[in-house]
Amino acid sequence: MSIERIKHEGLRQKVMTAEQAAEFVKDGMNLAITGFTGAGYPKALPTAIANKAKAAHAKGEKFTIGMVTGASTAPECDGVLAEADAIHFRSPFQSDPTLRNNINAGKTAYQDMHLSHVEQQMRQGFYGKFDITIIEAAGITEDGKIICAMGIGHAVEAIKNAEAVIIEINAALSEGLEGMHDVYADVGLPPHRKPIPITGPFDRIGSPYLECDTDKVLAVVLTNAGDRNSKFAEPDEVSKRIAAQVIDFLDHEVKAGRLPKSLLPLQSGVGNVANAVMAGLLDAPFDDLTGYTEVLQDGMLDLILAKKMKTASATALSFSPDALARFNENIEFLKDKIILRPMEISNNPEVIRRLGVIGMNSMIEADIYGNVNSTHVMGTKMMNGIGGSGDFTRNGFFSFYVSPSTAKGGAISAIVPMVSHHDHTEHDVMFIVTEQGMADLRGKAPRQRAKLIIENCSHPDYRDMLRDYYDRAEKAGGLQTPHILLEALSWHQRFVETGDMRIK
Amino acid sequence: MSIERIKHEGLRQKVMTAEQAAEFVKDGMNLAITGFTGAGYPKALPTAIANKAKAAHAKGEKFTIGMVTGASTAPECDGVLAEADAIHFRSPFQSDPTLRNNINAGKTAYQDMHLSHVEQQMRQGFYGKFDITIIEAAGITEDGKIICAMGIGHAVEAIKNAEAVIIEINAALSEGLEGMHDVYADVGLPPHRKPIPITGPFDRIGSPYLECDTDKVLAVVLTNAGDRNSKFAEPDEVSKRIAAQVIDFLDHEVKAGRLPKSLLPLQSGVGNVANAVMAGLLDAPFDDLTGYTEVLQDGMLDLILAKKMKTASATALSFSPDALARFNENIEFLKDKIILRPMEISNNPEVIRRLGVIGMNSMIEADIYGNVNSTHVMGTKMMNGIGGSGDFTRNGFFSFYVSPSTAKGGAISAIVPMVSHHDHTEHDVMFIVTEQGMADLRGKAPRQRAKLIIENCSHPDYRDMLRDYYDRAEKAGGLQTPHILLEALSWHQRFVETGDMRIK
Repeated sequence: MSIERIKHEGLRQKVMTAEQAAEFVKDGMNLAITGFTGAGYPKALPTAIANKAKAAHAKGEKFTIGMVTGASTAPECDGVLAEADAIHFRSPFQSDPTLRNNINAGKTAYQDMHLSHVEQQMRQGFYGKFDITIIEAAGITEDGKIICAMGIGHAVEAIKNAEAVIIEINAALSEGLEGMHDVYADVGLPPHRKPIPITGPFDRIGSPYLECDTDKVLAVVLTNAGDRNSKFAEPDEVSKRIAAQVIDFLDHEVKAGRLPKSLLPLQSGVGNVANAVMAGLLDAPFDDLTGYTEVLQDGMLDLILAKKMKTASATALSFSPDALARFNENIEFLKDKIILRPMEISNNPEVIRRLGVIGMNSMIEADIYGNVNSTHVMGTKMMNGIGGSGDFTRNGFFSFYVSPSTAKGGAISAIVPMVSHHDHTEHDVMFIVTEQGMADLRGKAPRQRAKLIIENCSHPDYRDMLRDYYDRAEKAGGLQTPHILLEALSWHQRFVETGDMRIK
Repeated sequence: MSIERIKHEGLRQKVMTAEQAAEFVKDGMNLAITGFTGAGYPKALPTAIANKAKAAHAKGEKFTIGMVTGASTAPECDGVLAEADAIHFRSPFQSDPTLRNNINAGKTAYQDMHLSHVEQQMRQGFYGKFDITIIEAAGITEDGKIICAMGIGHAVEAIKNAEAVIIEINAALSEGLEGMHDVYADVGLPPHRKPIPITGPFDRIGSPYLECDTDKVLAVVLTNAGDRNSKFAEPDEVSKRIAAQVIDFLDHEVKAGRLPKSLLPLQSGVGNVANAVMAGLLDAPFDDLTGYTEVLQDGMLDLILAKKMKTASATALSFSPDALARFNENIEFLKDKIILRPMEISNNPEVIRRLGVIGMNSMIEADIYGNVNSTHVMGTKMMNGIGGSGDFTRNGFFSFYVSPSTAKGGAISAIVPMVSHHDHTEHDVMFIVTEQGMADLRGKAPRQRAKLIIENCSHPDYRDMLRDYYDRAEKAGGLQTPHILLEALSWHQRFVETGDMRIK
């Protein structure tokens, strides 16, 4: 029973239904809501708020909220609120199909942010106070401290910067989560900031509990529902070939003495290809690996269970249903091997650079000069968002971008003359890897990079087109970064018009 | 006399002419050469190397070098070597007209880098060893330690990663520089890195001297020549209007309690507009200002001399001739108010974020969504480079981009539909300021930003053109970031073809 998880007497008195709690939420309010990549989001209240919005809209009344989360949530949160046209502003990351449609239709204003910026900008007062913060938790201690759910995200600042708080206690969460969190709440404001005292990826620097003034709590709602546990695709041939190249390169660096045999802490972005790299590490010649990442997925969990990885640090756990079962079964074994931190710490430039994290992220497309688009489809439509990829790319020891060389059955090339949106610039991206090959961009000028990216990474169907563009661009203007300005984005326009980047 | 500045007996024995020292430099070598924004570069050796290259070329022989500096140097360094076609690779920043032409003509491969990345990538072995490092210094102590010149830049790593070292001792430098430097050489390699122990902008954490194994020193060359001391333009009306808006905004934030009355440490990019903001602060209602910047120019010097600024930290001093005279005259007063650090420290994301530096940089252009181009003219030609602007923009408390709204007598708009090169993305830029007005982009979605930038920042000559583009873009595709892909860069193409971005 959920109620038994509330050990604090005063907060037990505040238990009510989601519908009752939703009454506190008014039109125009700004809400901070926990949730990070399908974990740790409230399960009941968003539907109750969405129903309120629908009822208001049916009566011709306005009802929308501004909503700042940790990262993406799930259909029961972003999905239901978007379906009710209830979100006027959303930040910093999402991946819900209905919300995405609303964003790209201009119904929801979406600010896509580096995740490491979110909490400090809240603390610095850039957003003002939040009217209500809604958090999911696994329990409440006798003295009113909160045991976080499968992630922390921005919960610390979301509570500190809220006028009021509503807590959902989810009985479906393992009680073994208690003690896995490391809630560091001392980042502070300049000019009074101190170094973040992490020198190893598994250093504990905070408390296992989240603190909240119990007087600020308006309501506690009881739930019993799983996170959004999406199944991962089994690594296919393309993913395996990408993974093998990354692993071969790391092995080469170890042999050259430029990396320790246990590598450096690994970050892995969300998605099937990134997950395939982790799967590939199961059989790689490295031991005592460590993780320092934002989302811990199946691949990293299995590395820990297989004792290839010693420890991992993340801000959230995002598992397939099978992996969740393995996690819950092994939670006692995992307890001293997994740390969950605030996303300001998991994604902190200071810590990422100090530890020398090896960053691996997927992309929508890269251009011939090494700029990467992580967010926009054909330049104008938002896919998900930049998430933490910029934090790790700019500050990591290595920054890998991985993708199959084509998408949509070959109609889209992941290597284009110019990316249609720039999220990571030529200054930050070190390696582009497709199933075709890898380009090491370090220490190279743009024209040197172009040759490597075209010859090593592009799909053969597009290679001649890229060579042709590049050759003509060299005759068109300056030779630092040759481009034909009116043609640079023409591949994307062709796709919009014909459904294929290739010339028919 | 320069020779008296060499107190170490062994190194005195190695004094020779620049021509003799240049004999150590062979075709194909990779050199690390100190120098940062016209300060601290060798004055004699580059000409001797250039003469060697010219003589070789006259005989039909190959002679080029790879060259990694701190930042830009001067005509007597980048200029003479470029004029001799002697540079095949150059990184990380330059501003020399002859070298720029070589880069844009494809004769020199130029890697434009974040300055905070340079030293760590050298240490991490991304460049291999340098054959020879050439540094400028103000003197050598009895025990062979080096007193740096008007800047430090990448000198620490340049020496550590060199097979051999050549030192130029410049008698034109004030001997009062001794003690002004803070050489921190302990950043180290992961997984053994510790926090950088700076918690205030004036914290000293290193030694006043640069260390170098005297056995590695091939030669010491004596010089007596000034740095490249370019005159700044007196702030004009446009610069003053930009400065006034930045200062008004900061004053507003102080009054709202979101900034201390002494502000937070200031960073100011290179150039006349940035210098004008510093000049404007002379009469602003703030006291006890501090600086944490990469290049300390006239404006910041005058703030210190006027006792408006308590202390400033930089990696180099880049003065006009008049300001250099004021600096030298007041060096005893300034000694405990200016620190010069390695650029890995002046530009360190960890420190910049911790201190909450207020970053102010100039730009070539911004687009209607807040992306900024700092480096490329019309998308293909390199101007100077990104320098440290990315380090401060991504990590600062505030990030301002300042520019007049037009250039070339109105033929170029600084606000365009899409920037022709992306150095700082919509995720990083907080404020765009022109003489027309200011756009505060924080917490806003791209379409909200577009309205602000067009209405507040663009020049009236271009405002209707921007409104028209934006209105049509809203009908053309997705509404996260509306664009007309084939038209987005057409303003630049029009300028290339007609010399004017406006439609005639």
